[in-house]
Amino acid sequence: MITRIDHIGIACRDLDASIEFYRRAHGFEVVHSEVNEEQGVREAMLRINGTDDGAASYLQLLEPIRDDCAIAKYLEKHGEGVHHIAFGTADVVAATEAATSTGIRALYPAPRRGTSNSSINFLHPKDCHGVLTELVQAADPADAHHS
Amino acid sequence: MITRIDHIGIACRDLDASIEFYRRAHGFEVVHSEVNEEQGVREAMLRINGTDDGAASYLQLLEPIRDDCAIAKYLEKHGEGVHHIAFGTADVVAATEAATSTGIRALYPAPRRGTSNSSINFLHPKDCHGVLTELVQAADPADAHHS
Ligand SMILES: [Co+2]
Ligand SMILES: [Co+2]
Repeated sequence: MITRIDHIGIACRDLDASIEFYRRAHGFEVVHSEVNEEQGVREAMLRINGTDDGAASYLQLLEPIRDDCAIAKYLEKHGEGVHHIAFGTADVVAATEAATSTGIRALYPAPRRGTSNSSINFLHPKDCHGVLTELVQAADPADAHHS
Repeated sequence: MITRIDHIGIACRDLDASIEFYRRAHGFEVVHSEVNEEQGVREAMLRINGTDDGAASYLQLLEPIRDDCAIAKYLEKHGEGVHHIAFGTADVVAATEAATSTGIRALYPAPRRGTSNSSINFLHPKDCHGVLTELVQAADPADAHHS
């Protein structure tokens, strides 16, 4: 079951410039940043609000660290902008299966590592009316490593 | 000050098909729908979670009702997908001025009517790293009309 909008993923050419943009325009602050080598991105999470499932909603700013990653390809084709939306769930496998059971394709056969050791999968945008949709399960608190 | 992600605005060719898609894939339900003649859209709000400012976060599904509205032009150029993101605030004029004071252009000189008699403005995507950004102030409860 999905219990929140976890984040909106935004493709940026220059992560530091986008962080500064959101700080000046709206006062948003970075609460976490990391490099995800597998996803090919340098990223920053800006916390916007708490959610009634005990978690929070974020903007996720994503800058590619290599030319063959999804964000680099998106920037080349579309320029900067919203890349994906992410829904939070307590069980990413169950939420993925609920979607794939209706005929939607998942991008990964099993969840991969997302921000802060979360478990994530993506649903194919062609099966979701043009919206690349991520499903996110937060790491167990005992496993979490925050930078 | 911005206190929540209010909604993610998604451009659809067929509102009923998109509503049915989100119901089947994720179990989301419509909590409000309306026609906004000024914006040129038929829309549905799907509530995803409550937020710690006492409001909630939604998906806003938008179908054009005429060919010259922003959503129709978006669909023609990009196809279905995320059209804008919307931040909630208790004071849309102040939140707009905070942004425009940093050089960002607002689309309207004064707020217009949004969903459920909210007051809204938009920030120009070219000034926001490619993200069309809406600012939303909910209607006073006494003024609200829910369908
Ligand atoms: Co993401
Ligand atoms: Co909107």
